[in-house]
Amino acid sequence: MVKVLLVGCSGKMGKMISATSKNFKNLEIVAGIDKFNDNTLNYPIFSTISDCNVDIDVILDFSRPNSLKDISTFALKNNKPVIFCTTGYSNEEKSQILELANAIPVFYSANMSIGINIVNAVLKNISNLLFKDFDIEIIEKHHNQKVDAPSGTALLLANTIKDSIDSDTNFIYGREGISKRDEKEIGIHTVRGGNIVGEHEVIFAGAGEVISIKHSAISREVFAIGALRACEFIFNKSKGLYSMDNIVNTNL
Amino acid sequence: MVKVLLVGCSGKMGKMISATSKNFKNLEIVAGIDKFNDNTLNYPIFSTISDCNVDIDVILDFSRPNSLKDISTFALKNNKPVIFCTTGYSNEEKSQILELANAIPVFYSANMSIGINIVNAVLKNISNLLFKDFDIEIIEKHHNQKVDAPSGTALLLANTIKDSIDSDTNFIYGREGISKRDEKEIGIHTVRGGNIVGEHEVIFAGAGEVISIKHSAISREVFAIGALRACEFIFNKSKGLYSMDNIVNTNL
Amino acid sequence: MVKVLLVGCSGKMGKMISATSKNFKNLEIVAGIDKFNDNTLNYPIFSTISDCNVDIDVILDFSRPNSLKDISTFALKNNKPVIFCTTGYSNEEKSQILELANAIPVFYSANMSIGINIVNAVLKNISNLLFKDFDIEIIEKHHNQKVDAPSGTALLLANTIKDSIDSDTNFIYGREGISKRDEKEIGIHTVRGGNIVGEHEVIFAGAGEVISIKHSAISREVFAIGALRACEFIFNKSKGLYSMDNIVNTNL
Amino acid sequence: MVKVLLVGCSGKMGKMISATSKNFKNLEIVAGIDKFNDNTLNYPIFSTISDCNVDIDVILDFSRPNSLKDISTFALKNNKPVIFCTTGYSNEEKSQILELANAIPVFYSANMSIGINIVNAVLKNISNLLFKDFDIEIIEKHHNQKVDAPSGTALLLANTIKDSIDSDTNFIYGREGISKRDEKEIGIHTVRGGNIVGEHEVIFAGAGEVISIKHSAISREVFAIGALRACEFIFNKSKGLYSMDNIVNTNL
Repeated sequence: MVKVLLVGCSGKMGKMISATSKNFKNLEIVAGIDKFNDNTLNYPIFSTISDCNVDIDVILDFSRPNSLKDISTFALKNNKPVIFCTTGYSNEEKSQILELANAIPVFYSANMSIGINIVNAVLKNISNLLFKDFDIEIIEKHHNQKVDAPSGTALLLANTIKDSIDSDTNFIYGREGISKRDEKEIGIHTVRGGNIVGEHEVIFAGAGEVISIKHSAISREVFAIGALRACEFIFNKSKGLYSMDNIVNTNL
Repeated sequence: MVKVLLVGCSGKMGKMISATSKNFKNLEIVAGIDKFNDNTLNYPIFSTISDCNVDIDVILDFSRPNSLKDISTFALKNNKPVIFCTTGYSNEEKSQILELANAIPVFYSANMSIGINIVNAVLKNISNLLFKDFDIEIIEKHHNQKVDAPSGTALLLANTIKDSIDSDTNFIYGREGISKRDEKEIGIHTVRGGNIVGEHEVIFAGAGEVISIKHSAISREVFAIGALRACEFIFNKSKGLYSMDNIVNTNL
Repeated sequence: MVKVLLVGCSGKMGKMISATSKNFKNLEIVAGIDKFNDNTLNYPIFSTISDCNVDIDVILDFSRPNSLKDISTFALKNNKPVIFCTTGYSNEEKSQILELANAIPVFYSANMSIGINIVNAVLKNISNLLFKDFDIEIIEKHHNQKVDAPSGTALLLANTIKDSIDSDTNFIYGREGISKRDEKEIGIHTVRGGNIVGEHEVIFAGAGEVISIKHSAISREVFAIGALRACEFIFNKSKGLYSMDNIVNTNL
Repeated sequence: MVKVLLVGCSGKMGKMISATSKNFKNLEIVAGIDKFNDNTLNYPIFSTISDCNVDIDVILDFSRPNSLKDISTFALKNNKPVIFCTTGYSNEEKSQILELANAIPVFYSANMSIGINIVNAVLKNISNLLFKDFDIEIIEKHHNQKVDAPSGTALLLANTIKDSIDSDTNFIYGREGISKRDEKEIGIHTVRGGNIVGEHEVIFAGAGEVISIKHSAISREVFAIGALRACEFIFNKSKGLYSMDNIVNTNL
């Protein structure tokens, strides 16, 4: 049984993780860290991680970038692996995460859904083959409150494609006016509306045929499932940096 | 039997119209106008319209903007209706077409497919109702040789929506950077790739649900069918300006 | 302010309605009926409707068919309108609902989402026009726990199409073997998988073009929004039977 | 320069292959076999293959099953590789094709499009991984004149999935009535309408997310391109049986 310490347990994602963990037989959330405690969670909650005196195996973080320092200190002191699922880190904070992986097992991915990471693995395999004869375009759709365009996941997929093809490519983010498509461009189209959870579609358009690979998130539960899989994965691993690629590739 | 004179009979669309006309029982192409004549069409072909001495009922034009003058002269002189399916007219030429409709029956539409015009009619009906609670976005896809972005048809649909809602709206043609969607914007996304014939999708994204209305052109035959329907429609009509709206509304 | 009595307030949909009602300015849930009370709702809860002594304007039912009798008695006695959103009524129970509408205002629809009912209204308008030249097929997708195939909503849409076209039509629910499509058939395809909330797509496939009208439910919140709109709608109406058609048509 | 003998050169596909071959620099159609000769093709045409006295490298067959015997005789006698793109072979004829591959290089695939074969290769890679947590369903769409349901290509994809997962699976071809989805079933849905060229979509529906992989044929040109690639591929190969898998895998 993997004993999980959940940082950010009282937030929306925190509560979803607690609920989802009940479907994982080999894993249990044994303690949480959060300033808020509405007494709806059935494990002890501490307001700062340094107060935690429960025996744990893995730290799972769904909080905010500014808790990075305290989590790192605690993980190093107790020699416990960490899964960082928080988003919005600065480049400096990202460097600190990479450095931490020199001492303990660290898991960090731009998108925690199993599905997106499988799509990403497929793109790695087929993009170079298709690029010669197919034009590549990406359409992503999210709710109207999302502030960044395109989504981090769209950029993750676009960079996977770019890195796997033997050619220069440029990303363009819209088209208006009079000019033909350049062979080397990848159009990335950002649709925003209502409360769409998240869709990413990669289109390969060739002579007489189109291949489309599409991922739709139905609920944020997918990120909880991915995070809990990561907890199972990182348990008993040696120090180093891990990502969803390891989970997907382990199985592929 | 409606006797049609086809201007531009030897081009790609001209030949498709000749082939498609065989499925129309009440209509026959009796003569063509084109500089080229490869002897594969079974009706007389004249190199200029003024030479045509065949008895006709309707003039169907799929040529180039610069034949507008000759066609107008011939149509006025013989008092015959004209269907203009040529694209790329200047604003001045469009004015001349409208003026011609003061003297004879004239048919002119931005898109000759029945399907697109039904989609357009549906948008006219539902956009104002939905706009209050749904965000509207348009995605269009065409082949990689198309030079204009967005397509004229995407703009036709966007303007139909804009005209039917009681509110200011702005069209935007891509998103990049950090900022939330404005309630009053309609995103128009232009995908280009391979040899996609033409797709237009209007998305209404609301709280917890999305409605999508999509038109896919499979082949250019749809434009031939629409044009031949227009020939049947305009036969025996009185002078004035007609469009696909009249055909769709007649039936609705 | 419309004062709503919510029957079935402690269930999944009941709680969603309570949460969603906070976005409705002209409406308030003032009391609930449920055997269970976990003290998370901020209005009085009675275990049977006959115990309710709170001043209310409208009864909203999201419970079970077997509460029909008690609700009807209460509504008749107090002369209050009822919105029935419960599903799974027997034909006899449906008759009782229709009869109740002879005495008080009653609201009853097969699907409470605004979006589906707009799609249904569009189908009513265009199906007869398109049927001559387009083949009609329906694809619906739901989660893998759904027991009925096809969905009630797919049948609602199919019957709307059937009723609006001047022709016999047969529904078929799959194809296997060797035979061509009959002009008069409508294929209804039932996809089941994962936890898809609900998708319905109607395809009109013609010569050279395809029109598709698609509704995707993102969350069950859409049914809450529709139900609360129905509460606003039925307030102060005279006796009779109402449905989502009235809400959509009022606006169209 | 690979010199191709095209059997069935005057049919629809034959003419498309002649047109498409002009885009292939390393390949030329030097002779054709067909009973019909409308003098529009710029190479010699023989009415039976035994009459052909032109120097050739590869035989490409897009004719009918009953020409199998003559083609085999000619290929064996002259020791030339054959690409069979004809469809509708009986099981006995398929056995004869396999036997022929013991003597000369033979190329045979259920679907000649590059895109479908890439989709097939992707399915081979990911199906076993996804099957544990995702339900798999296939939707295929074709024109209303197609007689077989489901399409051969849908069965090709379904069998690829079945063969790659460690589990029994059953194909079902529609759903009607009351019962839940069985974990081990793959639903195959056959949509027929208008003149849709051909679409195949494989859906993986999991907890909170859906992955969809879709192939759309825009025109029959894709089959010409695949066939001509096969001509380039089989040139100078040793005896044996080859398929599109070899072309896709060579590159992957």
